Amino acid sequence: MDSTAVKDQEPFHWQTSIAYKTKDKIVVRGYDLNELIGHVSFTEMAYLVWRGELPPESHVKMLDALLVSMAEHAFSPSSAACRLVASGGVPLHVGVAGGMLAIGALHGTADRPAELFRDAVDRTQREGLSREQVAVKVAGEARKAGRRLPGFHHAQHIIDPRTARMLTLADEYGISGQYVAMARAIEAATEEFWGRRIYLNGPGAMGAICMDMGFDVELIKGVFLLSRTVSLVAHTYEEQHREKGWRASSNASIVQPLDLSLQKPDFYDGPRDRPLPKRRGGSR
Amino acid sequence: MDSTAVKDQEPFHWQTSIAYKTKDKIVVRGYDLNELIGHVSFTEMAYLVWRGELPPESHVKMLDALLVSMAEHAFSPSSAACRLVASGGVPLHVGVAGGMLAIGALHGTADRPAELFRDAVDRTQREGLSREQVAVKVAGEARKAGRRLPGFHHAQHIIDPRTARMLTLADEYGISGQYVAMARAIEAATEEFWGRRIYLNGPGAMGAICMDMGFDVELIKGVFLLSRTVSLVAHTYEEQHREKGWRASSNASIVQPLDLSLQKPDFYDGPRDRPLPKRRGGSR
Amino acid sequence: MDSTAVKDQEPFHWQTSIAYKTKDKIVVRGYDLNELIGHVSFTEMAYLVWRGELPPESHVKMLDALLVSMAEHAFSPSSAACRLVASGGVPLHVGVAGGMLAIGALHGTADRPAELFRDAVDRTQREGLSREQVAVKVAGEARKAGRRLPGFHHAQHIIDPRTARMLTLADEYGISGQYVAMARAIEAATEEFWGRRIYLNGPGAMGAICMDMGFDVELIKGVFLLSRTVSLVAHTYEEQHREKGWRASSNASIVQPLDLSLQKPDFYDGPRDRPLPKRRGGSR
Amino acid sequence: MDSTAVKDQEPFHWQTSIAYKTKDKIVVRGYDLNELIGHVSFTEMAYLVWRGELPPESHVKMLDALLVSMAEHAFSPSSAACRLVASGGVPLHVGVAGGMLAIGALHGTADRPAELFRDAVDRTQREGLSREQVAVKVAGEARKAGRRLPGFHHAQHIIDPRTARMLTLADEYGISGQYVAMARAIEAATEEFWGRRIYLNGPGAMGAICMDMGFDVELIKGVFLLSRTVSLVAHTYEEQHREKGWRASSNASIVQPLDLSLQKPDFYDGPRDRPLPKRRGGSR
Repeated sequence: MDSTAVKDQEPFHWQTSIAYKTKDKIVVRGYDLNELIGHVSFTEMAYLVWRGELPPESHVKMLDALLVSMAEHAFSPSSAACRLVASGGVPLHVGVAGGMLAIGALHGTADRPAELFRDAVDRTQREGLSREQVAVKVAGEARKAGRRLPGFHHAQHIIDPRTARMLTLADEYGISGQYVAMARAIEAATEEFWGRRIYLNGPGAMGAICMDMGFDVELIKGVFLLSRTVSLVAHTYEEQHREKGWRASSNASIVQPLDLSLQKPDFYDGPRDRPLPKRRGGSR
Repeated sequence: MDSTAVKDQEPFHWQTSIAYKTKDKIVVRGYDLNELIGHVSFTEMAYLVWRGELPPESHVKMLDALLVSMAEHAFSPSSAACRLVASGGVPLHVGVAGGMLAIGALHGTADRPAELFRDAVDRTQREGLSREQVAVKVAGEARKAGRRLPGFHHAQHIIDPRTARMLTLADEYGISGQYVAMARAIEAATEEFWGRRIYLNGPGAMGAICMDMGFDVELIKGVFLLSRTVSLVAHTYEEQHREKGWRASSNASIVQPLDLSLQKPDFYDGPRDRPLPKRRGGSR
Repeated sequence: MDSTAVKDQEPFHWQTSIAYKTKDKIVVRGYDLNELIGHVSFTEMAYLVWRGELPPESHVKMLDALLVSMAEHAFSPSSAACRLVASGGVPLHVGVAGGMLAIGALHGTADRPAELFRDAVDRTQREGLSREQVAVKVAGEARKAGRRLPGFHHAQHIIDPRTARMLTLADEYGISGQYVAMARAIEAATEEFWGRRIYLNGPGAMGAICMDMGFDVELIKGVFLLSRTVSLVAHTYEEQHREKGWRASSNASIVQPLDLSLQKPDFYDGPRDRPLPKRRGGSR
Repeated sequence: MDSTAVKDQEPFHWQTSIAYKTKDKIVVRGYDLNELIGHVSFTEMAYLVWRGELPPESHVKMLDALLVSMAEHAFSPSSAACRLVASGGVPLHVGVAGGMLAIGALHGTADRPAELFRDAVDRTQREGLSREQVAVKVAGEARKAGRRLPGFHHAQHIIDPRTARMLTLADEYGISGQYVAMARAIEAATEEFWGRRIYLNGPGAMGAICMDMGFDVELIKGVFLLSRTVSLVAHTYEEQHREKGWRASSNASIVQPLDLSLQKPDFYDGPRDRPLPKRRGGSR
């Protein structure tokens, strides 16, 4: 609020610490892009661009696992939105961006549980309490206030199948630390206040694991966005190639039934269930 | 155009061949998501979600290289757009989507050179001509009509530094086939019509290589979108953490000078130039 | 394609002919904004900003009628998309923008029929044919090629109720000219080729009328966009205030049934049908 | 958080109170759309769609004035963003939506001052204080906490030229009530805490006036969005018709100088300053 604000300034350029280019080269966080190409994986590249340094090996494996976890989830607000946008007759990138707009404070929210776990861990220091004591406070306060715990519960899965897999790998890769521990403690503490366990969901696990990898809370949303872009490209592309446009059928439901015992899943016509080949690491 | 279109239909669900979920599992192209997590890289996952099958090893390395190539390019219409959107005071995902909207027919256009190469290769069959003969026709016709050749020339680089690196890897991985060959032939043919060589640019190389990997032309845009999402997350995040919002300075230029000999690059304050560590495959 | 393109340029500013501002005033197309406020209607302002001059009285009335015609159409790809985006937990403007992305080449396409009518009128000159002769050619060629005629047919209405009202006013206000006449001629000509009349729809009428008002074809899409923004604001706002977020119900259909005789319209709970008050110009 | 959430539901339709359509008619807030067309202005239509009832005459004039006030403001984050998006090569509606994404919490924020004034007016009741007493508290608390007062100060204008004009009309039309009074009281109270007056800006005036018209706080953002869509259409269209795409000039500044005495305004090439014709209500 400065009365001199309208004074015209000396010319200057927008500033960044991410990258620069000249006529002859592109330099990303200090590395020549051409050295990176062929030597680092896309996952490593994302980590470098976002955080400024190449990741340690355990972080590469973990980030790969996280990005795979959230890359596809069938119909959701974002995949449905990208299909509706696509049905209006737009280029691929517009459908993808339209779907991404839906990934707001209630969808793909790995950053919000991350914030919850950060604040909870801070409380152990600030209030001189054990992890379990803080977890009980966090769960109890939320329940009393009628607030949802971000990162817990999944309306479609109840027990999100991704969570256990993600946490197992975080343990195996030596990533799990105080934030994953706090997430588990809060899950355990829910039983007392809800009368049943409220389970950590996939984005919740992603938030805790990213915190233990040292990600800034607000950057964690970016991990989800990159991951889900895979899905949005596929759904927009499929919509454009299978449908006629202007979705206006009066009795079409976006979301498929979850209880497949009730009916033949006529909404899915991709490959039948199949095991991952052994050479890929599959168990079968 | 059917007069019965307003008849109300039986209830049905949106259809897809990408994935389905139940209460207990998520199945992507036939594979249980939990088997994929930890066993395939994010790059492999993207390939699977988009194309329905896991990639052969050479495709994994090539797709990784392509995704790294386009992940960051300093300031461009999309990174500038995401920063302006961010400066209006929005959540991260909105800045990213806003930047993505700029990746239209004139930006990140790997799909358009892919189409050019597809049509050129088709002409060798249809018109019974050699690759070089078609290349000369393609270049000559474009020049005569005053049309740009999609995938050739880069206003900032003239000789795009990424191209040679990308093509070398495509050769090395055994990917290069008739589309890469056609891209090279057209580049060679430009000399005759422009009086100097018009060089294949990075998106042009991406388009040719993706064609030789069997990607559908229209899906190639998706490869660029996924890659550049890395950059859009970084630029949006940086804008939100370094700037005050509402970019309104009257003498700020978005794009930095390319001739760094002219001035100290005061617009870049990231890490200084550094070699890629040897253990990463760096030459130094 | 100029080899000097990487030379760094002298500083300059983006150029525009729309408006400028100083510390003390805002000037739009030559008029001081403060003189416009209170003296021109919003519709007149839109016309001025877009076309550079204030509209004649007949254009004000007609543009008002067009903007009212397309301001709300219950559920469509754009209103459904804005609701899905909103359900992800985003600010109002993000839902509105997300809905707008769906207004592509197959939705709100007043510009495409405008182009059809422009080309058809050009043919009367170029080919020395009467309006009716050209109309027969346009309809016949489209039918033969299996192409849809942009601006004709509406899957939900068959006979779009807005069309007659819009054309009646265009006649009454003295706007209807050669483009409206051509639209009517093409509609009449469809009978011969489809075996029944394919009716001009609302966006088709908008396109013809805007052409007779002298709008540039590509600006006509902007008329639709402004109009439908009213709807997108209302649907996003309603979604945010009535729904809980993350629309995931497995049996919810977006689009309501059109044959209301079949069932109680339980999907609509706004005001019951009512006449427009006489003092507003209503007939009752 | 209900364990029965995965039970599949009976089919139902999305609900709305805004509008419905049948094969034969479109009904908006109870009125047949065809009765509205030609009988209500676009401004009245927006009011009806948003608020459910047609506006009284004073509200029509006021809403028209507000929509005109914010329809164009030369270069800003949103108009610059729409141009960058357009420069990537996209359809008109994508540029407009891209620009709209920038209208976030720091841009076009009429809703945020509205909230400030609502809370301040509530405090007069709750704390039994006079308007002036509350105004002093609001200003003093913000200054002490180092918070900006939403709706006050404009970095480019200092004294926003729109404010006085908007408030004068609000007085003249009999709209000004307790919210406008509170806005004025807070402006007066700033002098004590900042050592100079911090002026109510245009969006701040819009917020206060909309509150006195009975708008819901969160809907006020929609008034700004509709208004500014006029500008975004014009800037996107101009970019597409005057520029070559891919804005990459290294020394182009987006925002023009505000002190025109310093240089010839070579960035503006629209009509020269001109008076509004007398028959339009102009003073000259």
